[in-house]
Amino acid sequence: MKYGIIGTGAIGGYYGAKLAKAGKDVHFLLHSDYDFVSHNGLRVDSKDGNFVLNDLHIYNDVKKMPECDVILVCVKTTNNALLKDLLAPILKPEGIVILVQNGLGVEEDVQQMFPDANIVGGMAFICSRKVNPGYIEHLDEGKINLGIYTPGLDKLRLLHVISDLQGAGVDADLVDLHAARWNKLVWNIPFNGMSVVLNAQTNELLANSSMRLLIYEIMQEVIQTAHHLGLPLLPGLADKMLAYTENMIPYAPSMKLDFEQAREMEIHYIYTKPLVAATLAGVEMPRVAMLEKQLRFIQSRQGL
Amino acid sequence: MKYGIIGTGAIGGYYGAKLAKAGKDVHFLLHSDYDFVSHNGLRVDSKDGNFVLNDLHIYNDVKKMPECDVILVCVKTTNNALLKDLLAPILKPEGIVILVQNGLGVEEDVQQMFPDANIVGGMAFICSRKVNPGYIEHLDEGKINLGIYTPGLDKLRLLHVISDLQGAGVDADLVDLHAARWNKLVWNIPFNGMSVVLNAQTNELLANSSMRLLIYEIMQEVIQTAHHLGLPLLPGLADKMLAYTENMIPYAPSMKLDFEQAREMEIHYIYTKPLVAATLAGVEMPRVAMLEKQLRFIQSRQGL
Repeated sequence: MKYGIIGTGAIGGYYGAKLAKAGKDVHFLLHSDYDFVSHNGLRVDSKDGNFVLNDLHIYNDVKKMPECDVILVCVKTTNNALLKDLLAPILKPEGIVILVQNGLGVEEDVQQMFPDANIVGGMAFICSRKVNPGYIEHLDEGKINLGIYTPGLDKLRLLHVISDLQGAGVDADLVDLHAARWNKLVWNIPFNGMSVVLNAQTNELLANSSMRLLIYEIMQEVIQTAHHLGLPLLPGLADKMLAYTENMIPYAPSMKLDFEQAREMEIHYIYTKPLVAATLAGVEMPRVAMLEKQLRFIQSRQGL
Repeated sequence: MKYGIIGTGAIGGYYGAKLAKAGKDVHFLLHSDYDFVSHNGLRVDSKDGNFVLNDLHIYNDVKKMPECDVILVCVKTTNNALLKDLLAPILKPEGIVILVQNGLGVEEDVQQMFPDANIVGGMAFICSRKVNPGYIEHLDEGKINLGIYTPGLDKLRLLHVISDLQGAGVDADLVDLHAARWNKLVWNIPFNGMSVVLNAQTNELLANSSMRLLIYEIMQEVIQTAHHLGLPLLPGLADKMLAYTENMIPYAPSMKLDFEQAREMEIHYIYTKPLVAATLAGVEMPRVAMLEKQLRFIQSRQGL
């Protein structure tokens, strides 16, 4: 199995490095970090142990990469228009594309670009960040859930991927994609947006009783929509997620980092697509819609 | 008619100065600005003409003031706990207390402090600010609407006050208090809170189409609650207020100024009281409730 990593940042850098360290055949696409990593290797400071990998298969041009059996797409969804050019040269006819991305509806859009591809959604539950070029810090969690989007996909091949990840020390599981996407939105929608609007980390938000209640209410709006769509979410999910977040290391969600670095925020897939899905299902999410509009205002003021 | 002005800032300083300039018998309570005004007078730079008033009746202690027939309370509602001590020495048995303040329910609370007082609510539609000690800038608008709270109040005496204001060049009117309070909330609720949460002036908020729509939706929530309470608001009020605001000079609402100067914000009377009223009427205002919680978070982070 040849693995391709598109986007060697906090997510792709971590999972790719774990696979490579376990001896898998992994090929990394890098952009701005290419020169640094070619000289210094890829460094991962992880709560499970630090390591540096030299002599990786790294590339600064997708056209130099080999065709891959499994491609992990770990770029931000705001770059998804580039995937047409990035995936075409390396995607095998039978290849699996795993979209380790946030939000709702990415699989649908990439499937439209590549109607014959085998698309899988990846939900990473990980606190990690790129500290510097070629330097990933893995702070907490680390699980990745994979869910099949393309109906004809050979499940055994995906189980092979999951087995490779598990063998590399990554907690990985096969899940129902639609439910898993909404499950993750229950966390992403309140925390990503509110951390930007209020310029606060998870622990600061939860330390305030008004904000904790609001986050709970937003979670309930998302859960209610998921239930309307017939998706089986865990009972008591909002309470569980709040407790889980309180036990996490204080954390700046990815959208907050995007905002601080004046990058486009993932509003489209994390907010707009779920709001459209809710409207189509006849459900209102007024708080989610308000958060989306506040984010659009903030983004427009950044000139993005 | 002896007038007392409690709070000689952007509001009280303006209306009090207009009355005094017109020859009315006005007595001003000042706090931090007392020394400055006693030496330099009270300066008003107004769109209708600039003027400076010397030899005003000013006081730095309410106990030195005479009893007044009409008291204009122009302090922030966050200081209303002080009114018990501030009004008691100067309130005549037949005196009128005009609460020129924001939000809902101030009349009720002050009436409880002074069960025999004649309470009037004042709704000022004015863009003014205190630039420096004893220096008020009046940028735009200026109307003040008065509405009777205490049922036994002699309407003729209030019409006399309105006549004095009009004679002083102030546009003043007698209105239905409950409807007028909710009418003003339609503007205050979206613009005050959003200007703090998003650190933006009115023109910046309205220039963004997402935010303009959100402000419209919040206005509709407030209007819907007012309708539920049986109050007659103008048809098309939200559209009219948006158009009115677009024609205003770019403006930082008072709550934004409070926030910037690390003063307590008027969350209780502008948000919490209307939310309680809506709940009692069986109406939900999810966007207003969300804004209130965001403001409570911001305020708590200021240590207030």
